[in-house]
Amino acid sequence: MKRRQVCLAAALLLAVFALPGCRTAFHAAPLPIQPGGITQVATIDALLAGVYDGHMSLATLKQYGDFGIGTFEGLDGEMILLDGVFYKVRADGKVYLPDLTEKTPFASVTGFEPDIEAAIEKPLDMQAFVELVDGLFPRQNSFCAILVRGDFTRMRTRSVPMQQKPYPPLAEVTKNQPVFDFENISGVLVGFRSPDFVKGVNVPGYHIHFLADDLSGGGHVLNFELKKGLLKMDTDHGWLNIHLPAQSEAFAESDLSSDRSHELESVEKER
Amino acid sequence: MKRRQVCLAAALLLAVFALPGCRTAFHAAPLPIQPGGITQVATIDALLAGVYDGHMSLATLKQYGDFGIGTFEGLDGEMILLDGVFYKVRADGKVYLPDLTEKTPFASVTGFEPDIEAAIEKPLDMQAFVELVDGLFPRQNSFCAILVRGDFTRMRTRSVPMQQKPYPPLAEVTKNQPVFDFENISGVLVGFRSPDFVKGVNVPGYHIHFLADDLSGGGHVLNFELKKGLLKMDTDHGWLNIHLPAQSEAFAESDLSSDRSHELESVEKER
Repeated sequence: MKRRQVCLAAALLLAVFALPGCRTAFHAAPLPIQPGGITQVATIDALLAGVYDGHMSLATLKQYGDFGIGTFEGLDGEMILLDGVFYKVRADGKVYLPDLTEKTPFASVTGFEPDIEAAIEKPLDMQAFVELVDGLFPRQNSFCAILVRGDFTRMRTRSVPMQQKPYPPLAEVTKNQPVFDFENISGVLVGFRSPDFVKGVNVPGYHIHFLADDLSGGGHVLNFELKKGLLKMDTDHGWLNIHLPAQSEAFAESDLSSDRSHELESVEKER
Repeated sequence: MKRRQVCLAAALLLAVFALPGCRTAFHAAPLPIQPGGITQVATIDALLAGVYDGHMSLATLKQYGDFGIGTFEGLDGEMILLDGVFYKVRADGKVYLPDLTEKTPFASVTGFEPDIEAAIEKPLDMQAFVELVDGLFPRQNSFCAILVRGDFTRMRTRSVPMQQKPYPPLAEVTKNQPVFDFENISGVLVGFRSPDFVKGVNVPGYHIHFLADDLSGGGHVLNFELKKGLLKMDTDHGWLNIHLPAQSEAFAESDLSSDRSHELESVEKER
């Protein structure tokens, strides 16, 4: 039934675009976009600059993918989108199921279709894990969506406390971020390796969130030791679609011209 | 008739996506994407690095817009896309109509729908023109597509000679670029003002090409003096869609991690 509906949509669209005189087809009403790529909301530098207003509802974001990471309006926690379900790890360390009317100021999603799988049967720390992924998919100018279901001997995450306006820059917020340490926990890593050229727009390199299987915790991953697990990678991304919050005054007025690499480093990594 | 077809497509799509259980809609077959944004092929840094292989046919690119600029496979001239028609200004200074099977290594297009218009009735040099556009649309974090039909007392353009493999970097090519000077010529400026955060991905600031009304010349604009004309700007861009040449070995192997701002400056501007 699902497939038939999708085929119907495709056939109807082809018919419409093939109709004579329909040269303004690209002016048509907004549609969810095509498969095999990454969709992101706003830019990481806007988030670093303190633009925490929600730009897109989770309901809309879901149309662009079933897998991804991000944050919520007001910086109210870390987002994990897994199998089409959103999870929110708030600053209290707990996992919540956000309403689809909630909005995000920054997120990256994809329709996850793994093309590389690897069983991990010996312990790996985060650095060894990065080397494993880089070895399996060395193309550093390509995006790679990363999923690991595994058992972790150690997991260190953080979340971020919800902010009130006027919003401080992200590097200020994360100075006092709550950090969570877990031992012998089963869960899922969800994230991306992004090319260097996304600098300013997204997070170059690895950006990974964690969700415990028993929903006892999660967050933005700072460090871990993986005991064993199953790695799945989706390396087939033909486009990056950046949704620009053109109507946002905060976005319009933020300074997105300076190099925020050092801020990003301080925000993303373990100190 | 056109509008009815477009509305029909929108209604059918909404119906399809609203159907229960259709959660893999974003995995459907490739479609031209939604309106109100910019589509670009590959990245400017890949072009600077010498990746001149064509990644997308003009026929496909046309599905994403009727207006834009770029270049051609092998760096064989400057592209102008105007009212859905591609023009190629080659290194001999002449204007050609490229076949739609030709490919582009780098281009930016949009479905041009101007929302700001201004009659220019007194002479403006390029700097005064930039100040005019910035004044009419000060949002520097937004894209702006720019069209001017006008009479120019002076126009200086350049094109680029077709390259053979192994391709040299763009900054090497433009050291010997043919430059064309025109006096009292009528024509069209086509281009974009892009936000600073596209650094590495596209050209921050102004990037404008020219096409003479009598098709006697054109190219990448280095400088001009506008006598009078009509300026149209499309400032409503809700997304930037970057097509990534994921299958290209040259793209995969190019160094896209270094800061090529100085190379870009030397390539884009008048020396």
